[in-house]
Amino acid sequence: MASTETARQDFYPTRVSDRPQLLERNEPVTRGGVDDGPLDRAALDAFDRDGYLVLPEVFSTEEIAGIRGRLDELSADPTVRADERTITELESDEVRSIFEIHKTDPTFAELSADPRVADVARQLLGSDVYIHQSRINVKPGFVGKGFWWHSDFETWHAEDGMPRMRCLSASITLTDNYPHNGPLMVVPGSHRTFVTTVGQTPEDHYKASLKKQEVGTPDHDSLHELIVGQGREIRQLTGRAGSVVFFDCNLMHASSENQTPFPRSNVFLVYNSVDNALEEPFAAPSRRPEFAAATEWTPVPRA
Amino acid sequence: MASTETARQDFYPTRVSDRPQLLERNEPVTRGGVDDGPLDRAALDAFDRDGYLVLPEVFSTEEIAGIRGRLDELSADPTVRADERTITELESDEVRSIFEIHKTDPTFAELSADPRVADVARQLLGSDVYIHQSRINVKPGFVGKGFWWHSDFETWHAEDGMPRMRCLSASITLTDNYPHNGPLMVVPGSHRTFVTTVGQTPEDHYKASLKKQEVGTPDHDSLHELIVGQGREIRQLTGRAGSVVFFDCNLMHASSENQTPFPRSNVFLVYNSVDNALEEPFAAPSRRPEFAAATEWTPVPRA
Repeated sequence: MASTETARQDFYPTRVSDRPQLLERNEPVTRGGVDDGPLDRAALDAFDRDGYLVLPEVFSTEEIAGIRGRLDELSADPTVRADERTITELESDEVRSIFEIHKTDPTFAELSADPRVADVARQLLGSDVYIHQSRINVKPGFVGKGFWWHSDFETWHAEDGMPRMRCLSASITLTDNYPHNGPLMVVPGSHRTFVTTVGQTPEDHYKASLKKQEVGTPDHDSLHELIVGQGREIRQLTGRAGSVVFFDCNLMHASSENQTPFPRSNVFLVYNSVDNALEEPFAAPSRRPEFAAATEWTPVPRA
Repeated sequence: MASTETARQDFYPTRVSDRPQLLERNEPVTRGGVDDGPLDRAALDAFDRDGYLVLPEVFSTEEIAGIRGRLDELSADPTVRADERTITELESDEVRSIFEIHKTDPTFAELSADPRVADVARQLLGSDVYIHQSRINVKPGFVGKGFWWHSDFETWHAEDGMPRMRCLSASITLTDNYPHNGPLMVVPGSHRTFVTTVGQTPEDHYKASLKKQEVGTPDHDSLHELIVGQGREIRQLTGRAGSVVFFDCNLMHASSENQTPFPRSNVFLVYNSVDNALEEPFAAPSRRPEFAAATEWTPVPRA
């Protein structure tokens, strides 16, 4: 049968079957070498092996205070609160996330281009980068909810049309992270396995999923196989404010609710390779809005 | 005005006002000395100061395996599952707690009298003891819910009529407790402050509260004052299976949900001084059932 259309190859099919699968990643993790940026061989290898890297004390106490001050201003601003890019908690009116801050605010635009973060992203991804998504996450004391286990790439591939795993997140911690106030939990090494999810993406899924994600998250049996079956462990990423966590787009991660009086907040910057720009969604009726997944972008400038 | 009735004195009024209060504890914590049991001076002082004490590796791997085996049998037994003393998770059918096991099962009757636990309880409380409540807690992987902050004594006083704080819990851990699978969180030193709660106890409150407690739990402002205002910290109690955690009945504690595949289970034994037996409830229309708060008891036998 002849066809004029060439079918697009999907390396990571998800949300297309009623049975989940664990697929092997078929592309490299760390792409650059020691001459391409600030990380040494040990750090590059650690990211390759674990799928994440924590750099402590990257930003000074003064710098973090400045960023937090700006965050407080934004959270209190009625215009910001009313913006569709601001997400509030399901069960309270507290701000949970503010998106696209690298475009709307000079403080965060500058931060996203800071060489202490952007040079590392370029080195790990082996190319120039652009911001796929940026946001501030706030997990208030007592009422902050957690995130269930997920691979960011699963959503970015299915709903945003990101073709390959040449993308990473940088989380700049604005508060001290303790084991008890809902820190990031990761499964080291899980970035080499793609866990497909079942079910179809509903229309406008992002409106619900940014508050509490269900479609696009792995089932219990797959998680048990990934963690216990593959002999992996779970690590909590704790530490002082001012550290930066870099993690691969396919690393399985989660976080627990925050029952303590100690709030948690961080700046999330998602760097995508300029060679991995978005195509049409692989498994969704329409793409998410621009603020959650940039189709219009320019490379992050080099310092 | 003359009256033939003498009003009962309530040292810890709670659920009686619409404004919460932080009251000072007006009685000792550690009652026995070094000659009264196995704990040395340092351990007695630590319990007095912190309100809890962790004794690692009290039970051997073989002993724990035996207890877990019995727990698995009970959890699978349809008669046990149908019993009112068995509490299942709100959102699933998994067993969350089985009560009164020291009366219904020989394995747990023997455990509750084990001198490695009961001698410590007698030493700390400075008298013979009886079991106020016993239960097995199971926090399954992935779906286990947490407990919000509370003082056990607040409920035992209000709903069960326990007059004074001469009571403690021993938690025997049957699984390894990690920082990430919802371990016990405590506020060291908080046992010296009684946080009153607002609202009235509804009829048959225990049926809901054993699944998810709301009435009888402290408000955010009181917790903030207790933890941040009083300069306290939060500690997670982690460690290998087979350890025993002793904690004062008025210690503020909580636990988070368990999002990991690693289940958590423990045996809870509440030892009350024979000089602190239950009276009429201080703030409830009727008392909780016998399985949750013993009015019929005999002293735990000495070995």
